[in-house]
Parts: sequence; structure tokens; C-alpha cells
Amino acid sequence: MTRIALGLSFAGTRYHGWQSQPSGQTVQDRLERALLQFATQPLHTLCAGRTDAGVHGLMQVVHFDTTLQREPFSWVRGTNRYLPPDIAVQWAQAVPDAFHARASALARRYTYIVLQSPVRPSLDAARVGWSFRPLDGPAMRTAAAHLEGEHDFSSFRASLCQALSPVKQLAPIVIEQRGAYWRFDFEANAFLHHMIRNIMGCLIQVGQGLHPPDWLGEVLQARDRDAAAPTFAPDGLYFRGPVYAEHWGLPTRTAAYDWLP
Amino acid sequence: MTRIALGLSFAGTRYHGWQSQPSGQTVQDRLERALLQFATQPLHTLCAGRTDAGVHGLMQVVHFDTTLQREPFSWVRGTNRYLPPDIAVQWAQAVPDAFHARASALARRYTYIVLQSPVRPSLDAARVGWSFRPLDGPAMRTAAAHLEGEHDFSSFRASLCQALSPVKQLAPIVIEQRGAYWRFDFEANAFLHHMIRNIMGCLIQVGQGLHPPDWLGEVLQARDRDAAAPTFAPDGLYFRGPVYAEHWGLPTRTAAYDWLP
Repeated sequence: MTRIALGLSFAGTRYHGWQSQPSGQTVQDRLERALLQFATQPLHTLCAGRTDAGVHGLMQVVHFDTTLQREPFSWVRGTNRYLPPDIAVQWAQAVPDAFHARASALARRYTYIVLQSPVRPSLDAARVGWSFRPLDGPAMRTAAAHLEGEHDFSSFRASLCQALSPVKQLAPIVIEQRGAYWRFDFEANAFLHHMIRNIMGCLIQVGQGLHPPDWLGEVLQARDRDAAAPTFAPDGLYFRGPVYAEHWGLPTRTAAYDWLP
Repeated sequence: MTRIALGLSFAGTRYHGWQSQPSGQTVQDRLERALLQFATQPLHTLCAGRTDAGVHGLMQVVHFDTTLQREPFSWVRGTNRYLPPDIAVQWAQAVPDAFHARASALARRYTYIVLQSPVRPSLDAARVGWSFRPLDGPAMRTAAAHLEGEHDFSSFRASLCQALSPVKQLAPIVIEQRGAYWRFDFEANAFLHHMIRNIMGCLIQVGQGLHPPDWLGEVLQARDRDAAAPTFAPDGLYFRGPVYAEHWGLPTRTAAYDWLP
């Protein structure tokens, strides 16, 4: 048996999230169907991080085990032949059996893009979140600093979340304005279900002046989902991918990284 | 009667181009249907430049005449309520009767985005052209310089083109690499039908090393469509909008300008 790791990019708009469902309309379903067509054997994939419906992937990583012997780029080209136009395998690499797409991930990275404009998105519909009010960068940065470090993030946790612990280690959130777009970069060892979208809902309310920056500290300390703002739309959320130890020798980015503002 | 100018952005993927058709599936059809719903009177629009199926609009400009009196932003908000998510009016402004969206345009600007990657587009499917071979920037710039200035562009003209003259004035084509993406900026007083996509087909062949840079001078001088490369895909083409004299006081860009690499 050989263990293969794949990195893939996708637009999440048309899919019911990552995780396989009876509907068959998830990214995993499409990937496994394409792998079956190319490999002519069922291959079960395990991913680095499940994404919600509507969330995009700059670099999802999966692994699977197979008896087939193929050149790495043959997995890329062969699988892409059977994938829809909005999903593509970016790289493939044989990995040791000790590698596990989820368990080996030291951290996950996400980026959220928000259009700040009096007019809703159009050309970029389903690719960005939207704030019709101007956002206050310094206020959002002050608010975000309250979340940095190891905390109990229960206030930002969806009721359906299956994580064993609400305590996660969050890196500083990087917030930058690029023309009409705002970019928010997130990194944590792991995220709770809806955690980023719930944090985004709060940051946007602070940015719009509806709450003072220190309110986010109070929300965090409440450890109560009711303390936080509503979940922000998935449209502008991009899974930048997992972080693995260097010794695995896996690619750390895809071409799609250069698209975002 | 008041003459109103509108600027709008759209993703061209789902539409059969700009110009109204019996199918009703064009951007103009959707705009005029939305205007009818908002204004409760038929409003016929004239645009700055027709776009092909699949071509995107950063800032199309139209004008129409109406007896209605509305605040400018009311045209924006009211029309957007009835437009699909991938089309939005960005601004509205009352203009003198002497203004004409097409005839007053001194020039048109387009941008072409090309993904250079061994793997086809996915997240950016239908938003970019694709070259699986690396592109040679200096070679493409040398080739493009042959087209600068006033020339007979018959070699780059579609057989269906209705322009009175094949002679156009082309500004220097600006070619820049931004990570995995190449950006090509075009400006001319006017463009022949398929002119940019036919020039792009040639530039990409030069960039891939299939022809030397000076070949483009020969193609231009041949004044024969058969001399040029095949028409490049519309997917990566964006209408940046018309250029008007400053005295009209119209906006010169939209938020969507900041979306492109």
C-alpha cells in the first residue's frame, strides 16, 4: 500500500461543504467519484479540515491509501480529468504511513475577504463578505487582540460543534485593507465549528462602530454563544490550508493564493 | 426628460454577452428588466461597449432617458433590488443630453488575466485564461510593441465585425506578472470584434515560444485573419470601462477594480 497526499483548490459556492453526504453534492463526494473513475478502485479520503457549504479552498489536503503505482503528476492530471471545472487537484505526493492529513496538521489557516462598499458584491458575488458601512481598522485590530493566544472559545462555537475541547490556540489575526477589500488572516492549531464566522460577525460589528473594541474581550470571557454577534456569511471565507512539519516535504501553497487581494 | 448614466459591474459567466437577445439571457436584458421593475416604465439603455458572452464587466456604462425624478443613489439601490447577484449598478448620475455612453467615449479599457500553472483553473474557473506552459514576459512585451499606435487591425478582426474601419489607435499594452497570474492591460479608441481575444491568442503563442516576438509585426502587416492565432477564451477578459472627458464628472472606477490581481 502507498499513502498519497493531494492538495486541491475549489470554489465552494456550488457544494454542500466538504464532508461526504447522501446528496453527493459535496467536494469530498466529487473528489472520491473522480478518484474512482481515474483509479477504477474506491479510494477513501481523509481531509485536513472540513469546510462549510459556500466556503472556498485555496489548499485542502487529503490522504488515502492505494495499491496503485502512479507517478505523482499522473494523480493530478488523471483526477482533474474527472473533476468539475471549479475543483482541481494541485499537487500529489507519496507520503510515509505515519502522515495523516488531519492528525499531522500543526495548524490551519483561513482568510476572510470583505468588500466595503455602499453597493453589494456582483462580479465577486459569493466570493466575498460585504459591509455597506465603512470599517474601522484600528478598532477591529484592538478587538482582535483580545482573542490572541490560548482561550476557551465557547462564545464562538456552533451548537453542533463536535470538538472535544473549546480551548484553542489562536495566532494574531492580521487585518489589512486593500482598496475596497479587507483581508482577515486567521491561524490556529484548530478551529471550532463556525468559530471564524462567529469571530468575523463580532469584528464586523466592532468595525462598523456598533460595539467598542473591548466588547470582544467580554464576549470571549462570557463563554456563551449568546454573547456574540450572528454568524457571518460563508461567502468570503477561504481555507488557506493546513500547516505541516517541514520534514514531510509537502507544498505550502497553490497558485490560487495569488488571486486574493 | 432627464438623461441618466449608470456604471455597473457584472460576472459575464452566466450571460450571452451584453447585447439584448430574444433569449433574454444577456446583461442588457437583465438590466432593462430590473429598470422596468423599479421604474415601472420601459427604459431603453445604450452602452459604452458591447461585451462577448463570458466577458466580465468592471465598469460598463449605459445611459437612458426618463421622465422620472429620482435621487442618483435611489437608481442604484432600486435597480439592484431587481438584479441577479452577479450584476450590480455601482453609481448613477444625471448627465446633460449631449452625453452619450458610446459616442462620448474617448477610449475603452480592458484587462485580461491569465493563470500560468501546470494545473487548470478551479477556484478561479471562468475568471481567468490559462497557460499550462510558462510565459516569457520580455518576448510578449517585444511582440506587443509592434501593435502600439494607429494600425489597420484586420488580422485581429472577427468576420462578423460591423466596425466601419479596421484602423484603430492602440495604447501600449501593459503586461505584468503577479505571482501565478499574468495581467494584460489594453486601451484603444475602439476595438474591433474579438480584437483583444485575437491579440491575446498571438501574445500567448509568443509567450509560450511557439513564435518569435517579431512574428506579431508580420501578423499585423498581413491584414488577414488567417495570419493570426486562434481566438483566445473569453474567460479572463474584463471590460474596465470607457474613458470620458473629465468635464462630464463621471466616476472613473468601481470597487471591483481592486478585485483583480
